[in-house]
Amino acid sequence: MNVQIREAKKDDMKDVIKLINELAVFEKEPRAVVISSEDLIKDGFGERPLFSCFVALVNNRISGMCLGYPRYSTWKGPTMHLEDLIVTQNMRGKGIGFALFSHFIKFSHLKNVRRIEWAVLDWNIDAINFYKKNGAYVSKEWQIAQMNEIAINNFISNNENI
Amino acid sequence: MNVQIREAKKDDMKDVIKLINELAVFEKEPRAVVISSEDLIKDGFGERPLFSCFVALVNNRISGMCLGYPRYSTWKGPTMHLEDLIVTQNMRGKGIGFALFSHFIKFSHLKNVRRIEWAVLDWNIDAINFYKKNGAYVSKEWQIAQMNEIAINNFISNNENI
Repeated sequence: MNVQIREAKKDDMKDVIKLINELAVFEKEPRAVVISSEDLIKDGFGERPLFSCFVALVNNRISGMCLGYPRYSTWKGPTMHLEDLIVTQNMRGKGIGFALFSHFIKFSHLKNVRRIEWAVLDWNIDAINFYKKNGAYVSKEWQIAQMNEIAINNFISNNENI
Repeated sequence: MNVQIREAKKDDMKDVIKLINELAVFEKEPRAVVISSEDLIKDGFGERPLFSCFVALVNNRISGMCLGYPRYSTWKGPTMHLEDLIVTQNMRGKGIGFALFSHFIKFSHLKNVRRIEWAVLDWNIDAINFYKKNGAYVSKEWQIAQMNEIAINNFISNNENI
């Protein structure tokens, strides 16, 4: 099977948003995706793109994608973050995920970063094993804290005078 | 006590790197910091700054700082990440951390993001309680995966021909 990885184009975003929604269902948050392919085009292909995206093609069809962006560590300096690595359900187990992952690591390596980072769900054992096999350290010590739109707005109204 | 929060300047980076090293000791990784104040100046104050940094002044002395940058969620669009929120040990418990946190939330809110995110160590109960009290959700489900320089280089050498 021939897997081709290339930089994503604007026209790919309609396929990419389908993959993003497929992952949200897999991650048990089917209603979490509030952005559209138009948002991805606006955010990823303007003068200052907010992310880099690569797609995996098998027989000219998009079967997977990865998407990431720079971050900054006050310990290590510039780093890269892998936000998503997605292979469509019926194409898993064929090496497409590895091809995408490998491409992203090489892409990040060329930027001379001292760290590449991402998040994984603790019940996604296949993914965790895949990452560990490829040399990643998966930490149980760090927890992720988030404020969503509602929490942000509540905080702002509760602390208007501060 | 009068706490003043303002945007950090280049000259503040020598105090900021001290705070970063103090936090690394607190987080039990005293040797993890490989960057210097010069790196912070180069990375944060060039044409395309990699982060925003704010300092807390008490009697004109820097007693704390927070540092963050934009990220991108394929579910929510542009987000903000709070990388560090540090108050020097002998000035804790006086509201300086809250003043910095509040400033960062307001700064992020002005950017219209749908999410603000950060990481916290699971044994840092005081920090977790502080964040929860202010409306954050702290997830135990997501784990953080990282490749450091050695892992990246190993991966590259093991997969040169792919």
